[in-house]
Amino acid sequence: MPDLLRREDHGAIARLVLSDASRHNALSAGMIAALRRALNAIADDETIRVVILAAEGRAFCPGHDLRELQALAGEASAVRRLFEECSALMQQIVALPQPVIAEVQAVATAAGCQLVASCDLAVAAERARFGVNGINIGLFCTTPMVALTRAIPPRAAFEMLVTGEFIPAERAHELGLLNRVVPPEQLAEATMELARTIAAKLPTAVRLGKRAFRQLQDRTLEAAYGEAAGIMCANLMDADTAEGIKAFLEKRPPSWA
Amino acid sequence: MPDLLRREDHGAIARLVLSDASRHNALSAGMIAALRRALNAIADDETIRVVILAAEGRAFCPGHDLRELQALAGEASAVRRLFEECSALMQQIVALPQPVIAEVQAVATAAGCQLVASCDLAVAAERARFGVNGINIGLFCTTPMVALTRAIPPRAAFEMLVTGEFIPAERAHELGLLNRVVPPEQLAEATMELARTIAAKLPTAVRLGKRAFRQLQDRTLEAAYGEAAGIMCANLMDADTAEGIKAFLEKRPPSWA
Amino acid sequence: MPDLLRREDHGAIARLVLSDASRHNALSAGMIAALRRALNAIADDETIRVVILAAEGRAFCPGHDLRELQALAGEASAVRRLFEECSALMQQIVALPQPVIAEVQAVATAAGCQLVASCDLAVAAERARFGVNGINIGLFCTTPMVALTRAIPPRAAFEMLVTGEFIPAERAHELGLLNRVVPPEQLAEATMELARTIAAKLPTAVRLGKRAFRQLQDRTLEAAYGEAAGIMCANLMDADTAEGIKAFLEKRPPSWA
Repeated sequence: MPDLLRREDHGAIARLVLSDASRHNALSAGMIAALRRALNAIADDETIRVVILAAEGRAFCPGHDLRELQALAGEASAVRRLFEECSALMQQIVALPQPVIAEVQAVATAAGCQLVASCDLAVAAERARFGVNGINIGLFCTTPMVALTRAIPPRAAFEMLVTGEFIPAERAHELGLLNRVVPPEQLAEATMELARTIAAKLPTAVRLGKRAFRQLQDRTLEAAYGEAAGIMCANLMDADTAEGIKAFLEKRPPSWA
Repeated sequence: MPDLLRREDHGAIARLVLSDASRHNALSAGMIAALRRALNAIADDETIRVVILAAEGRAFCPGHDLRELQALAGEASAVRRLFEECSALMQQIVALPQPVIAEVQAVATAAGCQLVASCDLAVAAERARFGVNGINIGLFCTTPMVALTRAIPPRAAFEMLVTGEFIPAERAHELGLLNRVVPPEQLAEATMELARTIAAKLPTAVRLGKRAFRQLQDRTLEAAYGEAAGIMCANLMDADTAEGIKAFLEKRPPSWA
Repeated sequence: MPDLLRREDHGAIARLVLSDASRHNALSAGMIAALRRALNAIADDETIRVVILAAEGRAFCPGHDLRELQALAGEASAVRRLFEECSALMQQIVALPQPVIAEVQAVATAAGCQLVASCDLAVAAERARFGVNGINIGLFCTTPMVALTRAIPPRAAFEMLVTGEFIPAERAHELGLLNRVVPPEQLAEATMELARTIAAKLPTAVRLGKRAFRQLQDRTLEAAYGEAAGIMCANLMDADTAEGIKAFLEKRPPSWA
């Protein structure tokens, strides 16, 4: 069985590369399982500070493997398991201690677009395009919608969902799905540079921050503030943070382990 | 009694046209009732796949009929009934099985702007303008605010609400209230084209999708995913969706009833 | 002890000016207390209709006073009290009966950026910059995040929080943090003009509107509409609103006390 997913470590940065050329990187049951295993390993790996989710080939990810869906279509429980595994993968990215950056070299479709929207940050090549076009085959992209509507404004999301139309990278940037758009030949380096910027911060503060960001997203203002002060407090009690403040006041770089 | 509202059917597309020239299409009790009746009929009409909400005359809709409000101002219960009927109309658009597209040829004010924001999608002529200017007469647009703050970013919404200032169509597009802005002479056709695009999709998938979009909007991420997988699953069990997938894999158009 | 905060009244507009040159307007315990006292006095002052929050010197506000944080770092309860007072200040702005406009002449950092995001509206000079860069010293800006993520799209907010990078005023305007960006020499007048526009409206309607805006922000659509009709109704029962409607229908300015 060929590797569907390649992991390359660059110091504290793990780069996962979808590399299933035969299925254009579709989120087959095998690919979902490979991603979940890789993320599980990274979650427990204290040496990894940032994750890049990239792909090679002519597509970033076309979403589910339609041949696989077709084969399962008669078995409700098997289909349900597949969609639940896929949703679990998306939520695993959200819950991962480390920030995850999507590096999008080409088209991202349906659950592939959801994958981009589920990452914390996203960088794309100018030629990349984004669509949730399940509607064209009669399958509304309900699970991709959950991630997409949390990344871009509602009416733009609904238009994409009911028309099945694709948007170019520049529009995806305007709408808030992408953080940066760069020429294709600069994509890997621009994404790596963003990852290095984050990897250079105090890891405990980045982890605590990502967790707080995701946790407080659905809270009321009052509830969010109720939790935020305690999190800030715990953060400040860290000896490394004390060193960070001391170094800043002494106009020198912090000396972190 | 002249017709306040005209319905034109174009195949599977119902186009409702506000046509109360004498009151510039104000949301009088009569107009609200006419819209509610028309939408009720459409909700039960399986042959209609998309609704367009248009208007004729110099205004799209100026909101409530101020003479009517003035006449009722002494009777708290009558005023309350009017506002509740209006809010029920807005929520009826949200709950309608079919997507509703606003086609905005001119100015949309107060509850008229809310009407645009309550539709699922909106196309406007370049000369259209949008405002929630009740504040100018001492009546803060509280109910329009509910729809507006779900369509555009909060601080832009608050500025409109407390200054009463209008924004042009181009700005409304940037803020996310509009999906498309076109020259006035192309408005009807551009809106109809968008409607036809949606009407060509599998109706059960569009209906299920609109319902899911509206239902999951206020959920936490976890709760939304909890429901989304089941909805995807039910969608995939549909024989027409199976045909959609089969047709796609066989590189032919789906053969739907 | 020098005054950390200056209050200038311009008719119905109170302008609070951060003026602690020695600490670049940091949110020291003293500054937080001074702001809370000033806002408490304004909350009870029926003659004040709008508040401007401005600053003088080379920074708008750099956030917490790091020397003070450092001195407290050993004492968990004192740190917690400081963060809670700061969060209470931010929520006091949100709960203040009058709209608050930030007038940002220069850089706003960490809790200083949160201060801008907590105001209802914001105007900035072109040279102003915005950052939540606590991450650079190992202290993730968790409490600023609460306000920032309610003002700008989530992925742009997360990028600022984990990279510590600053954005210029123009980008902050695109993202929705700012309502207007003007040349530095026009900042005070542009902000005052916005304040005068709001101060000219019926004060009871503005107060009721701000309260409704903040209260209904975290509600579901159905719950928001459930409350909004009653608020509109109460607003319309006001004799001044009746006069506002009458004046509009008679094409004359309203005669409000």
